[in-house]
Amino acid sequence: MSSKWSPIPGGITVARGFKASGISAGLKSSGKPDLALLVAPKGAVCAGTFTQSLARAACVDLCIERLKVTAGRTRAVLINSGQANACTGDRGLIDSLRATQALADQLGLMPDEMLICSTGVIGVPIPIHNLLASLEHLIDSLNEGGGSDAAKAILTTDLVDKQFAFEANLGGRCVHIGGMAKGSGMIHPNMSTMLGYLTCDVGLPVDAWQSMVTRVVENSFNAVSVDGDSSTNDSLVAFAAGETLAAEYWDDLEEGLMALAQHLAKAIARDGEGANCLLEVVVKGTASAAEAQRIARTIVSSALVKTAVHGCDPNWGRILAAAGRAGVKFMPEDVCLWIGPIQLMEAGKPLRFDAHAASRYIKERMNGAYLNDDCVSICLVIGHGIWEGSAWGCDLSDQYVRINADYTT
Amino acid sequence: MSSKWSPIPGGITVARGFKASGISAGLKSSGKPDLALLVAPKGAVCAGTFTQSLARAACVDLCIERLKVTAGRTRAVLINSGQANACTGDRGLIDSLRATQALADQLGLMPDEMLICSTGVIGVPIPIHNLLASLEHLIDSLNEGGGSDAAKAILTTDLVDKQFAFEANLGGRCVHIGGMAKGSGMIHPNMSTMLGYLTCDVGLPVDAWQSMVTRVVENSFNAVSVDGDSSTNDSLVAFAAGETLAAEYWDDLEEGLMALAQHLAKAIARDGEGANCLLEVVVKGTASAAEAQRIARTIVSSALVKTAVHGCDPNWGRILAAAGRAGVKFMPEDVCLWIGPIQLMEAGKPLRFDAHAASRYIKERMNGAYLNDDCVSICLVIGHGIWEGSAWGCDLSDQYVRINADYTT
Repeated sequence: MSSKWSPIPGGITVARGFKASGISAGLKSSGKPDLALLVAPKGAVCAGTFTQSLARAACVDLCIERLKVTAGRTRAVLINSGQANACTGDRGLIDSLRATQALADQLGLMPDEMLICSTGVIGVPIPIHNLLASLEHLIDSLNEGGGSDAAKAILTTDLVDKQFAFEANLGGRCVHIGGMAKGSGMIHPNMSTMLGYLTCDVGLPVDAWQSMVTRVVENSFNAVSVDGDSSTNDSLVAFAAGETLAAEYWDDLEEGLMALAQHLAKAIARDGEGANCLLEVVVKGTASAAEAQRIARTIVSSALVKTAVHGCDPNWGRILAAAGRAGVKFMPEDVCLWIGPIQLMEAGKPLRFDAHAASRYIKERMNGAYLNDDCVSICLVIGHGIWEGSAWGCDLSDQYVRINADYTT
Repeated sequence: MSSKWSPIPGGITVARGFKASGISAGLKSSGKPDLALLVAPKGAVCAGTFTQSLARAACVDLCIERLKVTAGRTRAVLINSGQANACTGDRGLIDSLRATQALADQLGLMPDEMLICSTGVIGVPIPIHNLLASLEHLIDSLNEGGGSDAAKAILTTDLVDKQFAFEANLGGRCVHIGGMAKGSGMIHPNMSTMLGYLTCDVGLPVDAWQSMVTRVVENSFNAVSVDGDSSTNDSLVAFAAGETLAAEYWDDLEEGLMALAQHLAKAIARDGEGANCLLEVVVKGTASAAEAQRIARTIVSSALVKTAVHGCDPNWGRILAAAGRAGVKFMPEDVCLWIGPIQLMEAGKPLRFDAHAASRYIKERMNGAYLNDDCVSICLVIGHGIWEGSAWGCDLSDQYVRINADYTT
């Protein structure tokens, strides 16, 4: 990460001009916060990336359609975390339209300037009257320090909230970027949605912003896997609002956004169901970044690699086998492999290594991933190319199976 | 399955002219059978399909290279089940060449008419002297009822051996087809190889045979998933030898081979690590067979679907979410879904269904998959196309995790 950017406390409301709130609206039976609102200042531009699933929720359809027209004037996003509003038939779209219409009316804005994201149980409608009746309180609660309340209200079964912020001096101006996310902590079934929100307090053209956000997501949220099951509702929404940033600083901004998004993505993996450690796979030496990412993602998603990590087993055969089926050509005789500081292969040949030390390296990092900054690091060099790529995941535990099997519909 | 084909006892040696044997050669520390041999009659043609992994074992390279030249005169395949002979550096190829050279010498055949398949631990060389010293006994043991011994000697950690055979009257001739396979019962780590062998006692041109085998594998062995981790050594070898079969009966032969291969593939899924049931997913109504297969394979491989089945949970949201990310376009409003005899969705809308009955349907089939013929059936209709496709897998149990995590290198 560039030394220009420093971490600061807070999340989406560190960026000047943004307000947020989070309240309990009676959507969750637990009574926990379940409705969040993020309002961007006038003149904001908005970018989004959404699930590739064809069984996507109506709210995702609505966001995609609206951003085609209003990305240059989107002002607010409403997030409800009780029900995913996917597979709910016509009612899904009707409820999304009603909620954004009512929100626009009360904010004095246009409905097509509103987005809506939903997460929670699939196939169950939102208790829409509870939601509508809570909008006034939600809007009254908006404030410039409301990011933390919003970060809590978007959670479903995550164990911890996930927000980060950074600042940098770009061309004499102090620029702030903030973000929040919720993960696929599917402790109850059907709750599989990754949601992420980014803000920054400089302006740039909407097309440049969308391109930047797409690249950032590709190397952060799209490089994280808990169990390979993408969701009906995955969404990332990013706002930029403020005095225009000179193009010479766009690379710096993208670097900061990348760090912010990677922090959030790793926090999702750390808080994956049943996870005991964050697993980071770095692949180097490929002919393109995409090739390195593809191999890294295949390794980090392998059930056999994930169970080996869970068992603190430096099982290099599984890592190689996963790399081999990633669909990227390489010469096995070029392969070098490390787990943490311990080298296991050199030029395609297994080395004699201290298996106990390698096992201990993993074991020391298996202590409640969401509580600490450690990670189990696997580094695979597969050739002499100049490119590299990373992916993040977690171990596969019997706890994961129990979490996902023990519920009965 | 065509009524022309009837199941008969036995495996690879039901086809006339084939001999097989299986012995203990001291490759496994357990002393269990670990070396098998299949010898085809003169005039046999051979077809093979092999792992797509780039980290494939040297023996796979050797088979592929030899079949390019000698598919019309391949006579024998040697199978050792102690070590995968993958990631063993130069020694992998040297040992494969030595073993096939010695086998050819003793059989009085040419080395390039020999194939070799290996399965077992990755990264450990074959105890080649034990193997070479056992060849004489292996050849002495060859006999026309040796299929069962071979089927046992190719196993690694499978709980049961897997062999099937069928016969049919095609144009006045009694045709026999037989097969054996071993699965990805990775009860010890690094043992992830699917091996399959098919024989038949009619002749056909080698190109027609390879095409037929490729199509059969695509809809059988390639449609089965235990944990999504394909291996360094996956191989299928199929021999056809005998009086030429008239082309008008090739479709019948292919139908029989398909049934045989699907029986073997399902037996692999039933015996998957930690499996308690066979899971069958049938997708209908697509514009092509490939689309239906792609969706079926995504569903059967989904960790969330597999854990739901393990929990006897008729969790249709997870099935739809998996279908949605398979990369095949469909209209959610066309979707109909059944679990066993119970319909859960109609024209995209969730139905009220008896969740207890659906759960009971699954539970009744969760009683040791490899011991019985039951399966948990999911049927998804996604449109009005005429095509369908199937995939097979198993539930994901905490036992799977323990099996794969508890070993320490």
